[in-house]
Amino acid sequence: MRAADRVRGAYARIAEAGRPEAWITLRSEADALAEAELIDARAAAGEDLPLAGTVVAVKDNIDVAGLPTTAGCPAYAYHPAADAPAVARLRAAGAVVLGKTNMDQFATGLVGTRTPYGVTGSVRDPALVSGGSSSGSAVVVALGIADLALGTDTAGSGRVPAAFQDIVGLKPTLGLIPTAGVVPAARSFDCVSVFARTVADAQAAAHLMTGPDPADPRSRTWPADAPLAAPPRPRVAVPDTTPPGLAEPWAAAFDRTLRRLAEAGAELVPIDVEPFLAAAPLLYDGAFAAERYAAVGHFIDEHPGEVDPSVRAIIGAAGSITAAALVADTERLDRLRARALAALDGADALLLPTAPEHPAIAAVAADPIGVNSGLGAYTNFVNPLDLCALAVPGEDGFGVTVLGRAFADHAVADIARLLHPAPPVPPAAPALPLVVVGAHLSGGPLNHQLTARGARLSGPVRTAPRYRMYALPTTPAKPGLVRVATGGHSIEGELWLLPPAALGTFLAELPEPMALGRLLLDDGTTATGFLCEPHAVIGAADISAHGGWRAYLATR
Amino acid sequence: MRAADRVRGAYARIAEAGRPEAWITLRSEADALAEAELIDARAAAGEDLPLAGTVVAVKDNIDVAGLPTTAGCPAYAYHPAADAPAVARLRAAGAVVLGKTNMDQFATGLVGTRTPYGVTGSVRDPALVSGGSSSGSAVVVALGIADLALGTDTAGSGRVPAAFQDIVGLKPTLGLIPTAGVVPAARSFDCVSVFARTVADAQAAAHLMTGPDPADPRSRTWPADAPLAAPPRPRVAVPDTTPPGLAEPWAAAFDRTLRRLAEAGAELVPIDVEPFLAAAPLLYDGAFAAERYAAVGHFIDEHPGEVDPSVRAIIGAAGSITAAALVADTERLDRLRARALAALDGADALLLPTAPEHPAIAAVAADPIGVNSGLGAYTNFVNPLDLCALAVPGEDGFGVTVLGRAFADHAVADIARLLHPAPPVPPAAPALPLVVVGAHLSGGPLNHQLTARGARLSGPVRTAPRYRMYALPTTPAKPGLVRVATGGHSIEGELWLLPPAALGTFLAELPEPMALGRLLLDDGTTATGFLCEPHAVIGAADISAHGGWRAYLATR
Repeated sequence: MRAADRVRGAYARIAEAGRPEAWITLRSEADALAEAELIDARAAAGEDLPLAGTVVAVKDNIDVAGLPTTAGCPAYAYHPAADAPAVARLRAAGAVVLGKTNMDQFATGLVGTRTPYGVTGSVRDPALVSGGSSSGSAVVVALGIADLALGTDTAGSGRVPAAFQDIVGLKPTLGLIPTAGVVPAARSFDCVSVFARTVADAQAAAHLMTGPDPADPRSRTWPADAPLAAPPRPRVAVPDTTPPGLAEPWAAAFDRTLRRLAEAGAELVPIDVEPFLAAAPLLYDGAFAAERYAAVGHFIDEHPGEVDPSVRAIIGAAGSITAAALVADTERLDRLRARALAALDGADALLLPTAPEHPAIAAVAADPIGVNSGLGAYTNFVNPLDLCALAVPGEDGFGVTVLGRAFADHAVADIARLLHPAPPVPPAAPALPLVVVGAHLSGGPLNHQLTARGARLSGPVRTAPRYRMYALPTTPAKPGLVRVATGGHSIEGELWLLPPAALGTFLAELPEPMALGRLLLDDGTTATGFLCEPHAVIGAADISAHGGWRAYLATR
Repeated sequence: MRAADRVRGAYARIAEAGRPEAWITLRSEADALAEAELIDARAAAGEDLPLAGTVVAVKDNIDVAGLPTTAGCPAYAYHPAADAPAVARLRAAGAVVLGKTNMDQFATGLVGTRTPYGVTGSVRDPALVSGGSSSGSAVVVALGIADLALGTDTAGSGRVPAAFQDIVGLKPTLGLIPTAGVVPAARSFDCVSVFARTVADAQAAAHLMTGPDPADPRSRTWPADAPLAAPPRPRVAVPDTTPPGLAEPWAAAFDRTLRRLAEAGAELVPIDVEPFLAAAPLLYDGAFAAERYAAVGHFIDEHPGEVDPSVRAIIGAAGSITAAALVADTERLDRLRARALAALDGADALLLPTAPEHPAIAAVAADPIGVNSGLGAYTNFVNPLDLCALAVPGEDGFGVTVLGRAFADHAVADIARLLHPAPPVPPAAPALPLVVVGAHLSGGPLNHQLTARGARLSGPVRTAPRYRMYALPTTPAKPGLVRVATGGHSIEGELWLLPPAALGTFLAELPEPMALGRLLLDDGTTATGFLCEPHAVIGAADISAHGGWRAYLATR
C-alpha cells in the first residue's frame, strides 16, 4: 500500500475512534500526507525505505521537529529544532509521524491520569486506566491508528500501558537507543521504548533506532558476546510462588500463561524472585527520586501551580535528598543487582506479570499515589537492575513480561514470540540473502551500509571449505575471499536479508576489487555473497587459517 | 630462597632502613616466620605456590585478619575477622604479610602527610613528600623491604607514590580486583592497587587477585573482546602541547620520556588531552565528594577532634551536598567520558606525567589543601573516566603513567614495559607450556584450575591443521581433540605457562577421557596440550569446522 493511502487510513481511523485525549498534538492530515507523498516518490525511484509509509505516534517527551514537546505540561512546552535521533532514524527509514501522544506529566506515573490533556482510559474498558506514563502511545497502537508508537520507560512506562492495551511493549537494554532529544525523567534509568502489535514489528523498529549517538553519553553498543538468539529450548526462570500482590483472577491467568510457555517449548525454572522485587521501591521511595528533581525540579519549584499535584509532591520532595543518601542507595542497588543476576544463573530469561492488577480510573483518583506505586511492583526494578524487557499479552487479557540480562534483547524477543507469535501475514516481496565475511559483519566499520538499508541479520554462516581469505591493504581493512580448487578453508560469515532494491543499490556502490557472487556454504546451500577479484590478492597476507575475519582481527 | 630466609631478610632490612613511620602495624617477626615456615613445608610437599615466600606489605585500609585496620585514624580502628579477598588471594599463593602501612587518613590525600602515625618522606629525599595516600606501601617496596605492596587508588593514591619512589604502581580497571574488606573512600572509584619494582611483578600479583567476589557488588569480569596484548607497534596518544601545570625540569624530562617510548617501538599520536584533564576537578571539588561523606562522614561528625584537619574539612563539607547536585555532576562526567574515549579513538593507550611536581613536606604544611589538589591534575580523572593505569619511572626520576580504556590492562602493561623493561633476572625454574582448547580457555568453567595454580596466559595459538574436534557429552561440556591422518583442521587454543609442579598436579587430577600429549602447532613448533582418547569421540558431534571451542559455543 502506498504511504499516502496508509496515512489517509490512519486519519480516518482517528476520526472513527473518537479518542482525542490520546493526543497532545495531532499533526494536520495535509502535512502528514505531503510527507507520505514524498516517501512514495522516493520508493518509486528505487530508494530502500524499510518502513515506507509506516505510521508512527511519538510520546510527547520525545522531540519531533516542528511539533512542540510538552512532557505533559503546557507551561514546560518548547519547540525543538530537530528530531530526537530515535525519531530521525524511523523517519529516515520511511516512517510518517502522525503526532505527539498524551502521557503522565514528566513521565512520572504508571496510570495515564496525571495529565491536563485529558485522562486516557484503557481500550479494554474506558473506566479502567490506560496505564502510563506512555498512555496515548499504547492506546493509538491498540486502536489500529498507528502501526508503531514510541514511548519512554524508566519504571515501567513502556510496559504497563502495553499490558493494559493487550499489545507488545519493548523496553530495550539501556543505552542501545539514544535518549538525546528526550525530556529526562531519571537519567540513569531512562530509555526509549516501542509499542507495536507484534514482537517482530517492535524488534524491527528497535533495530533501526539502535546505535550510539554523540549527544547521548550513556550510549552503549552490543558487546562481542551478546546472544543473537534464544537457544532452541530456552530456560525461563519463573517465580517459585505466586508473586506478592498478585490477586485473583490474575494469579490463575499467570499460571495458565506459564503452562502455555512450557507447552511452546520453554523449560521453566522456578526461582526466588525476591532480589528483583526488593529493588522496586528504590526507584521512587528512595534517593533516586533526586534524578527526577535534577531533571525538572527547578521548573516545578518555579511553576507549582502548573504542575499535576501528585507529580509535584513526588518530584518536589526529592530536592532535599542528600548526595550521601543517594550514594548509600546506589550501594544498596549494586548489592541487589549482584544478587538478582546470581538468581538468573543458568536461565535465559525471567517471566513475570507486567502489573499486579488493572485499576479503575476512580480508584486512582481516590488514592493517586498509592495505587500508582502498587502498579510498579513488577516493573520498577527492571532498569535499575539493568535488564531488558518485552511485555506481551498473556492468557485472559493478563499481560506478562519476559526479562533478560543487559544485551539479551534478541533472546528475550525469541522467548516472547513463544507467547505471542506473529499472525500469518500475506507474502511480501521476498528478502534476498547476502553473506558478508569482512567489514560488513555486525559491529564492523561498513555494517551501517547494511543496517541503513533496512537489512536484518539472519545469523552466522560458514562457507564450504573451498575458499581462501586474504588481508587486503584497503582502508578500512577488508578481507578478500577467493574460491580455490584445493586447500580451501571454511570461512565464518553472517547471512543478512535485504529488500531487493537494497541489494541492488548496495551492489551499485560496491568498490573494486570487491565482487558479489554465489558462495558455497557449509550446509550445502548457496547464497549471494562477497568475493574478491583475484589480482587484488597477489602479495596479500593469506589469513585463511584464522577461519574468519573476526578471528583474524582478534590476533592483530 | 626459602620463605623463612626471605622473611628474615625483610626484617633485617626494616631495622637497617630506619623508617618506622612507614608502618602503622608491623607484624612480629616470629609470627611472620612461623607462617613462612608453613609455606616452606607446603612447597616442599609439592604444593604449587607461585608467590611462595614473597613478602608483602598492605595499606592500612585493607583488612588483614589478626591486625587492626585503622585507615590512618586510631579512633576508627577495628579488628577484622578475615583477610580482604585481595589479601587472601595473595596469601593463598604463598605470600607472607609483613604488616600494615601508613597512609593519608581515610585515603584522602596524595601527599602522605595527613596521618597521625608520622609523615613519610620520599625515599629520594626525606624533605620531599612520599606521595599518598598509599605512602608507606610505596616506601617499603622502594626500600627493598617488601617485594610487593598493596595500596588503594581512588584519585591517584596508587600512582603518585610510585612516581615519587621510582617504582611501578599498577591501578587495574575498576572492579577486576574485589574491594570487599577495604575501607571505602569513594565507592564508585575505589580500587586495590599494586606497588612493585617491575611491571611483571605487579602484573602477576594483580592477576592472582583478579576475579569477582560475592561481597563486592561492583566486581566486573573480562569482556570477550578485552585485548590480550598490545600490538607490536602500539599507537600511544600523547599530549599535543605541554600539559598544563607541568613546569621545568619536568616538562623536558617528559619530552625525553616520549622520545624514549618512540625509540622503544611506539608510534606517538598527539591528541588534545583537555577532555581528560577537565574531569579531574569533579572528583574533589564537585559533588562526588559525597561518596567520601557516605563512607566515613558519620564517623567524622562524631569524632571531629580525632580526624586530620584537612581530611575533616574536605569530607565534612560534603555532607550538605544535595543528591540533585550529584546527579548533575554524574551527567557532566558521562559527557566528559564520552569525549575522552572519542579522543582515544585509534590509540592503544595514552601517556601522561604521573604528577606535575614533587613538592617538599614544608610546602604541603604551608598549604595543605592547595598543594594536594594540584598533585592530582593527571591522576584524579582516571577512575571517573573508567580507565586503567600503570605508573612507571620515566627519564630523570620523573614518573609517567600509561593509561588505557577499561579492560586494556594487558595492553597497557605491554606498553609500560617498553619504558620500564624488567632487569635481567637469574634463570628460575622454567615455566612449562600447556595448550588448552576447551573448558580451560580463559573465561571457561575450568580455567580456575589453571589460575589457581599460578598459571599465566602466554597468548592464543592454533594447532597445525591435523586435528578434529568433537563435542563430548560431559559436564561441563568439553571438546575432544584427536589427531587425524587426513581431513584435519587447525584448532584455536591458548598457550598457558605453568610452574613444573603445577603441571604435575594438573595432570594428576585430569579425568578420563582427557589426556595431555604433544600437539603440533601451526607455527611448526610443538607443545604439551590437550588430547582425547579416541573411544570417547565415537558418536560425538564433530565440531572441527568451527575452528575452535569458543566459535562452536558461540553458535549454540
